[in-house]
Amino acid sequence: MRESRYEVRPIGWVESPLVDRDVAPLQGDEGAPDAWLVFDPSVGAGIRDLEVGTEIIVLTWLDRASRDVLVLHPRGNQSNPMRGVFSTRSPDRPNPIGLHRVQIVAIDDLRIRVRNLEALDRTPIVDVKPMLEPVGER
Amino acid sequence: MRESRYEVRPIGWVESPLVDRDVAPLQGDEGAPDAWLVFDPSVGAGIRDLEVGTEIIVLTWLDRASRDVLVLHPRGNQSNPMRGVFSTRSPDRPNPIGLHRVQIVAIDDLRIRVRNLEALDRTPIVDVKPMLEPVGER
Repeated sequence: MRESRYEVRPIGWVESPLVDRDVAPLQGDEGAPDAWLVFDPSVGAGIRDLEVGTEIIVLTWLDRASRDVLVLHPRGNQSNPMRGVFSTRSPDRPNPIGLHRVQIVAIDDLRIRVRNLEALDRTPIVDVKPMLEPVGER
Repeated sequence: MRESRYEVRPIGWVESPLVDRDVAPLQGDEGAPDAWLVFDPSVGAGIRDLEVGTEIIVLTWLDRASRDVLVLHPRGNQSNPMRGVFSTRSPDRPNPIGLHRVQIVAIDDLRIRVRNLEALDRTPIVDVKPMLEPVGER
C-alpha cells in the first residue's frame, strides 16, 4: 500500500439531542431527530446558496467509531450473519465517513437545521453536496 | 474552530483511462468510462460480500483538487453565476471527497470493475457503502 495520508478538516459540527450511540437510530429514516449543522465562519461563503426546502447530502466524520473493523454483524444484531464492512452501513469502518441525505428546514446565518439526522451531537461535518439534478438541468 | 483533524487512509486506488482532469467527464452519467477499483490486501475481508450486478456508493479522495475554493462558477463555465461550493459538485472544496454511485460489473479478487466512474486514474478510494434498502428489508 502506498503510504498516502490525507487530512480531513471539519467545516462544522452537528448539534443534536442524540448523545448516546447505543440508543441512536441506525439511519435517518428510522426515527432520527432534527438537528442543527453549525458551520465554521471560515466556510461561510461556501454555504451561502443553500436553501430551505432542498435536499442535501451531508458527509460527517464519525469520530466515535472504531476504524479496525472489517467484518461484523449488520445492525449490531448477533443473529445477522457476519458481513464485510463495505457491504454494510456500520459507522465502524476504516474511514468512518457518514453519508446522510437530509432536507433543510431552516437557516439562521451559519446554522442550518435539517430533518432526521442520525449523527450524534458534536459529530464533525466534513462536506455538503447538492443532490444531482437530471443531466439536462445541470 | 476547534482544531480537530482526522486522517484519511486510502483503502485502494482507481485504475482508469482518465488521466487528464481537463477532459474528464464531470459526472459518471456524462460519458465516464468503466474503471477498476483496486483494493489494498489489508482490507480484503471488508469487500468479501460485494457482488456483481449491485450498485454501490464509492467515496474517493480527489487528490488533485484545490482545497481553498469556497465560491466558483459551476461546471467551470464562466457564464454560470458564482455559487457557494457546497451547492455544487465541484471537486475543488475544503475536503475533496468524491461521491460516486456505480454498478459492479466484474470482480477479480481484490479488483472490482465498475461502470461509469468519473474519477481520475490513481485516485485514492476511501470508503465503499451499499445502497440502502427499503426500511423493512434492512
